Amino acid sequence: MGHIVVEVMPKQEILDPQGKAVVGTLHRLGHAGFTDVRQGKRFTLTVEGPVTSEHLAAAREAASTTLSNPIIEDVVGVYELNEAAAEVSR
Amino acid sequence: MGHIVVEVMPKQEILDPQGKAVVGTLHRLGHAGFTDVRQGKRFTLTVEGPVTSEHLAAAREAASTTLSNPIIEDVVGVYELNEAAAEVSR
Repeated sequence: MGHIVVEVMPKQEILDPQGKAVVGTLHRLGHAGFTDVRQGKRFTLTVEGPVTSEHLAAAREAASTTLSNPIIEDVVGVYELNEAAAEVSR
Repeated sequence: MGHIVVEVMPKQEILDPQGKAVVGTLHRLGHAGFTDVRQGKRFTLTVEGPVTSEHLAAAREAASTTLSNPIIEDVVGVYELNEAAAEVSR
């Protein structure tokens, strides 16, 4: 089984009220060092067997057509998840 | 300005109806190669100046206390965003 990560973030010019709320909460909890927070989406797509270039191409297409709204979001990452690093802190 | 990425995913044992809906849509659109999709959150935290180890420690703490719900979610990544790679497809 292989995994592909797709990362989607709000476009820079789009106001991110959720992010603003998070910054306020972090400041109240004493984390004053963060000046801005933006919240987006992270998908893991599972495929049968190892990840192929066809899988990556399909993931890129799915990312731009189905997993993001091109009007307000950017796809900022589409890559194979290295199993050793899978779901562990980097 | 530095940026730190925090990645949060639903725990493996947690049902992910959103992910199931996405898989169905992908299959209807002809992307039959994906057997499962899980949807989580991706945050970018901005700091004044370069990212320091203190920033990373604060980001880890914020990740586990504020940016995720430890009952149903895992923090799967907390790392400095390399500016060159910032917000471009990998």
